Amino acid sequence: MAVRATLSGFPEWLPDGRIVEQHVLDTARRIFELHGFASLETRSVEPVETLLRKGEIDKEVYAVHRLQGDDDSALALHFDLTVPFARYVVDNAGKLAFPFRRYQIQKVWRGERPQEGRFREFTQADIDIVDEGDLAAHHDVEMATVMAEVLAALPIPPTIILLNNRKVLEGFYRGLGITDVPTVLRAIDKLDKIGPDKVRTLLAEAGLTETQAKACLDLADVQAPDSTFVERVRALGVSDPMLDEGLGELAAVIDGVNRDHPGAARVDLHIARGLDYYTGTVYETQVIGHESFGSVCSGGRYDSLASDGKTTYPGVGISLGVTRLVSLLLGRGLVTASRSVPSAVLVAVTDEQSRERSYQVAQHLRERGIACEVSPSADKFGKQIRYADRRGIPYVWFPDDAGDTVKDIRSGEQVGADATTWTPPDTDLRPRVVAVTDSDEGAS
Amino acid sequence: MAVRATLSGFPEWLPDGRIVEQHVLDTARRIFELHGFASLETRSVEPVETLLRKGEIDKEVYAVHRLQGDDDSALALHFDLTVPFARYVVDNAGKLAFPFRRYQIQKVWRGERPQEGRFREFTQADIDIVDEGDLAAHHDVEMATVMAEVLAALPIPPTIILLNNRKVLEGFYRGLGITDVPTVLRAIDKLDKIGPDKVRTLLAEAGLTETQAKACLDLADVQAPDSTFVERVRALGVSDPMLDEGLGELAAVIDGVNRDHPGAARVDLHIARGLDYYTGTVYETQVIGHESFGSVCSGGRYDSLASDGKTTYPGVGISLGVTRLVSLLLGRGLVTASRSVPSAVLVAVTDEQSRERSYQVAQHLRERGIACEVSPSADKFGKQIRYADRRGIPYVWFPDDAGDTVKDIRSGEQVGADATTWTPPDTDLRPRVVAVTDSDEGAS
Repeated sequence: MAVRATLSGFPEWLPDGRIVEQHVLDTARRIFELHGFASLETRSVEPVETLLRKGEIDKEVYAVHRLQGDDDSALALHFDLTVPFARYVVDNAGKLAFPFRRYQIQKVWRGERPQEGRFREFTQADIDIVDEGDLAAHHDVEMATVMAEVLAALPIPPTIILLNNRKVLEGFYRGLGITDVPTVLRAIDKLDKIGPDKVRTLLAEAGLTETQAKACLDLADVQAPDSTFVERVRALGVSDPMLDEGLGELAAVIDGVNRDHPGAARVDLHIARGLDYYTGTVYETQVIGHESFGSVCSGGRYDSLASDGKTTYPGVGISLGVTRLVSLLLGRGLVTASRSVPSAVLVAVTDEQSRERSYQVAQHLRERGIACEVSPSADKFGKQIRYADRRGIPYVWFPDDAGDTVKDIRSGEQVGADATTWTPPDTDLRPRVVAVTDSDEGAS
Repeated sequence: MAVRATLSGFPEWLPDGRIVEQHVLDTARRIFELHGFASLETRSVEPVETLLRKGEIDKEVYAVHRLQGDDDSALALHFDLTVPFARYVVDNAGKLAFPFRRYQIQKVWRGERPQEGRFREFTQADIDIVDEGDLAAHHDVEMATVMAEVLAALPIPPTIILLNNRKVLEGFYRGLGITDVPTVLRAIDKLDKIGPDKVRTLLAEAGLTETQAKACLDLADVQAPDSTFVERVRALGVSDPMLDEGLGELAAVIDGVNRDHPGAARVDLHIARGLDYYTGTVYETQVIGHESFGSVCSGGRYDSLASDGKTTYPGVGISLGVTRLVSLLLGRGLVTASRSVPSAVLVAVTDEQSRERSYQVAQHLRERGIACEVSPSADKFGKQIRYADRRGIPYVWFPDDAGDTVKDIRSGEQVGADATTWTPPDTDLRPRVVAVTDSDEGAS
């Protein structure tokens, strides 16, 4: 199933699994760039204090230090790509053009207990837009629509982006007279994991009355495919200026997404997001039929994460959990790669003396973008064909001074061919990643 | 100059610098895949003892540990991609098809003192071939020719791959009666850095006689564009069976490279390579005119690195030092990117009410592979044009119900256009990375 992890929490794919991962990464990159996001990478380490200031995840950070040698500063591996990006923006503000759009595909590390869908090292693919001073609200829509486009382009089951707004939650809690908002947010964030009864207990422990706790849980229950959620929240009878602001923002986001990608998103007021730095819109994404696997695409608006004390750079971003998604696809056999190597052709070698002749064939094919390899040995042709077959290479080329031939080893058909003109069908040119349908499953 | 490092040794590029790096990575990947190398990634950490067993670089390793929490095992960040790959091959041998060809593009970490061309975090792009039992000698040629193709495809100054063979050095030293070969290798490896006089002192300290030291330095002095180096070594009057073997192997490699890429490589017997695991061919690569910057592409044959005790998996590999190369290109202003964003077009927004109309234009362009962004604001057109200009976006699109127009903001030419058919010239479709010529330098 193309998955290996000899060290718990640090997954490694086999070559065909990596082809699936590459397809996800290439698709994300292609669509991010079509939308004008510039690529960026930040260093993997940040000062420990930069990481600990953000979010309540101190125990999950991996510190790094030189095994022998004096470290000048305490460093740790980043746990997401948003905090380092905010730091990068502040560091380089004078050299960036705002609003600044970037995508970032890198590994992140968290020292959590590994479990299904949770890893200690994993790859994320983020898009973010930051501006100086103010960031226009339509970018909150854009984050969801760009990711909806990526998800729709992948050979995966349908997905749904869940939307909420921190101001809706915080305003509602304030309107109820609750002062310790972070504790309530953290309790609500656990709903999926521990269920409403245990959340009610947590809320009681936090000092909420039964009425307050019930109202919080009623709010978390609100879902809607459009802006009708506003009436349902109003019907709960709580009022607060921040709540009004949040409802307006959230209605604009769901309406905007429905305009460009009808049905790609849904308002779901139980989404809270664990990270402290979100201030408005928040996103999570479920794979339909695999909801328990967790969110594969999350993010939100952060109006005050990036600041040098004088200027604030508000941002909004969303992050595709590449490793989680790929582990779902591979672990549950939802997709398959047509072969485990890039080569479309194996060029056979008649004998070691004529290896150079085979190299020339390969060079002609490569000049026209056809990936190929030359047989490592001049074994009998049957053995060379088996070499191709084991890797899923569809064609074997036989150089012959009386006229080259190429064989489709699936059909057995062998035809005369010229290396300067022959081209395989488009479907064979590169490895393809396709959804496994029920009939495939039956056949395997 | 598109380079920033607010933390010494951990470089970060600005967006236009990242475009240069992406161009190097994309070129390497394209050529690696054309040659049938499959992509692979390994986890970033290995058990400390795995890393310390290989090579003499213990003081350079970065250990990682959870800031709060009990670690089950001592882990460290990998310092190259060869040691983890060898471990991966042994872990997964039953699921891989041998000979196994893979490329691997990842970051590695070394706790060295940062200096020009040396970083603590850097990206490498490796190709390797491993087999079970024996690995054919022609793969040693292939490593050099594939990398020569990558280097030739990049907009960089000419390069030369330097070739040696550990058996030549070790056999020669043995033939001289030297027993502590590793110490002599390490001393010779420092020739470029400290010069022959200081190396002679190191050799004397290691117990070599003056005659032995002179012979070692004479050997290191041998260079040749072809297999004529064999005679020059023979003329030094040392004989040893391992020396013979090494001379034969090295002659075959330089002859093979000259057949496919005449002039891409040179035999240079002062190349020793610091890492302990090489057993035969070794490679280093100089950028002509920038030799002091160090090798941008290194590797070698390792016949006994990967082993599970029963089976040994000999390999050969070569690694492009992407960060070092890019830092040379950016730091010395040798290349430039035509723009800092992927967008070929900025779609203007007439007023916020008609933003959706601009989104539709953008969608039509994207469907045909044209990267674009929609103006973040409905400011005056002059301001929207400046937005494009600051990013190097060549075209601004004006939606207009009386007929859309598109303007080349470099020439000022504005023409009627249909978003479902208009296409920019190929040279404007994507950011281009080109060598800076002397006349450019004069103009800037």
